[in-house]
Formats: sequence, structure tokens, C-alpha cells
Amino acid sequence: MPSPVDFYFDFSSPYGYFASHKIDPLAARHGREVRWRPFLLGVAFKTTGGSPLPSIPVKGPYHMRDMQRTAKYLGVPYRHPSVFPIASVWACRAFYWLDGRDAKRAKDLARALYAAYFVDNVDISATENVVSVCAKLGMKPEEVRAGIADQATKDRTRTEVDSAIATGAFGSPYIVIDGEPFWGSDRLDQIEKWLATGGW
Amino acid sequence: MPSPVDFYFDFSSPYGYFASHKIDPLAARHGREVRWRPFLLGVAFKTTGGSPLPSIPVKGPYHMRDMQRTAKYLGVPYRHPSVFPIASVWACRAFYWLDGRDAKRAKDLARALYAAYFVDNVDISATENVVSVCAKLGMKPEEVRAGIADQATKDRTRTEVDSAIATGAFGSPYIVIDGEPFWGSDRLDQIEKWLATGGW
Repeated sequence: MPSPVDFYFDFSSPYGYFASHKIDPLAARHGREVRWRPFLLGVAFKTTGGSPLPSIPVKGPYHMRDMQRTAKYLGVPYRHPSVFPIASVWACRAFYWLDGRDAKRAKDLARALYAAYFVDNVDISATENVVSVCAKLGMKPEEVRAGIADQATKDRTRTEVDSAIATGAFGSPYIVIDGEPFWGSDRLDQIEKWLATGGW
Repeated sequence: MPSPVDFYFDFSSPYGYFASHKIDPLAARHGREVRWRPFLLGVAFKTTGGSPLPSIPVKGPYHMRDMQRTAKYLGVPYRHPSVFPIASVWACRAFYWLDGRDAKRAKDLARALYAAYFVDNVDISATENVVSVCAKLGMKPEEVRAGIADQATKDRTRTEVDSAIATGAFGSPYIVIDGEPFWGSDRLDQIEKWLATGGW
């Protein structure tokens, strides 16, 4: 069994969201599983000096346009959120809390959180909105609230974010195949060829 | 006759170089000419706060790897230059000096300058190396030296750089089709579809 593909992403990243629609079927075509590993881009920016796109003159407005265009190009439903970007730490904690119990359901939760934010315009920086998304998937709100506030969940999240950054994740999505890193939803074509050929 | 595609690039940009190999045949498939418009990324960075890739922690080393990988993926000959990045103002002036006399030959010169830097490892930030590349294309060295030092050439170059930045060029390549901007050699797929369909 070949190693899984590591898919690092931030819940506030449109390009991460686009890749989330494509990466599993792409990997499956080459017999690979995908390990979803949300992290916090804001923490990575402390190392690289990066900034959220909307704060960057000229480049920011370009990307607002590119996000809409790329969503249509890729055939991914997208409505640019009214609040953007957002702090995604509670979404991240909910993911890792559930991941510790059921990795498959955690992936379903990640998809639901992304759809809430990038399709239904739900501000998933608010804890109660994260709890609501979990509730729709059948989880008990009080369990979710306790789970994401738990010190063990915070520690796990911190460890995962540190690990993502140590691996080199400076942007979202950041996808690693057998040690080879690919940044951006615009590297899916190279990823497909890399998986098909073993690299070049 | 539809409008030409505007291809903005910096002579020191590997991704601009990659696009230079692809953009003319791509546009020609859709009945379009391409207007090559070199500019100076360093001037654009003053507006956007951008930095040359090698100076950015974590992201810089990623891109050094991505450049080599992308060159092979696209089938473009590439040797990462020993000095990178470089000031490309003399290359830019040589281009616009020749462009004022013969636009078609100016495009040939741009290709030759790119090949000198990204294949033959010639440091085209040095005026004499720019003159040598021109000489290989049959121009007289003394005419080139006079032409690129001429105030009219400097003025034309400055006007073109200002115009590129006013259009929104914050990176290289920056390609504009009927007012729609595309940044990066990784947008060539969207450019192809945009030209084929008229946009979406």
C-alpha cells in the first residue's frame, strides 16, 4: 500500500476549498488515500512574513477575481463569503477532536465546514456556527462544545499546526506526495502526473 | 481582427520565461497575436510590498524546487541561473529600443535574452552581455550601446513599466485578454479556455 497523500489546508482558504473537491478522486485514480490535515495559515505567516490576500494592494483584488473565475473553471460551487478571511482555529479544533475518534467522519466534517463557509456564507470563525455544522452531521452540541474546548484537543491542534509548518506548509493547499511538496490548487495537474509516473 | 493578448513579463522571472515558450502558439490557436511587454517586477513590488522569491523564508526554497519541476513538466529547457534574480532594466531597454524599430525582431530578441539567462547562464543584468545577445542576432554592438543608453529609450521603458503597473501587473507573467488578467504560468489552462469560449 503506497503512502497516503498529505493534504494541508486552512478552512479559510478558497484555494484549499477548491482542492478539497478534487484531491480524493484524483488520488484514488492512482490507488492513494488522502490524509486531510487542516492547519492555520496565520501561524505560518509569522515565519514567512506572508499576509492575508485581501490586505495586499493590487494582488489582493486580483485574487478576489481569480477565486470566482477559478471556482467556475473547476466546476466547484462558490460564493465569496461576506467575512473573509476568518480565524479558523475552532473549525480546526473540531476537525482534530473528531479525527481522534473517527477519521472518516472528520473528513466529512471538513467538507461540511468548507461548504458552510464557501457556499452557505456561514461564518465558521464563530464557535456556535462550528457546533451547528457538527450538529447537522448528527453530533450532540454539548459533546462538541466540550470536545473542542478540551485541553487535549487544543494540544493536538497545536501539534498538527506545528507539524504542518515544520513540513514547509506556507500556503493553502499544500499537498505532499512521498516527500514532494506542491503548493496551490493550480498544481493539481502536476500532482496527477506525479502520481501517475512516480515523479520526474 | 480580435485584440492582441498582452503578455507582461520580467526578464528575470522563470515563470515568465516558461510562459514565453507557450503563449504565442496558444494565442495563435485562437487567432490572436501576442504583444510582448517586458516590465520591471522590482518597481511593481514597491506598490504591493512583494519581495523576490529567494528572499522569502520557506516559500523561496519551495519555488526553487517548483521552477525546476515546472520546467520539466512543461518541456521547457531550463538551467537555474547562478545569479538569481537580477536587475533586468538593460534587457528591458534593449527590447524597447528594438521594438521602436521592428516589433517582430524585438520578440526574437526577448526570446534570445531569456534563453541566454535561463539556458546558457549568461548574466543579462550586465549591459555588455545584453549587447552580445543583440550582436548574435546581427545587430551592431555600437548601435545597440547607443540605442539602450539613449534618453528616448529610457523614457519609453519607463512609460511601459508604468503602464504595466497601472494595468495591475504585480507578478510575472501577467497576461491580459480583452481586459481579463491572468497571473502565472499556471493560468495557461484557463487562458486557453478563455480564448476558446470568450470567458465565463
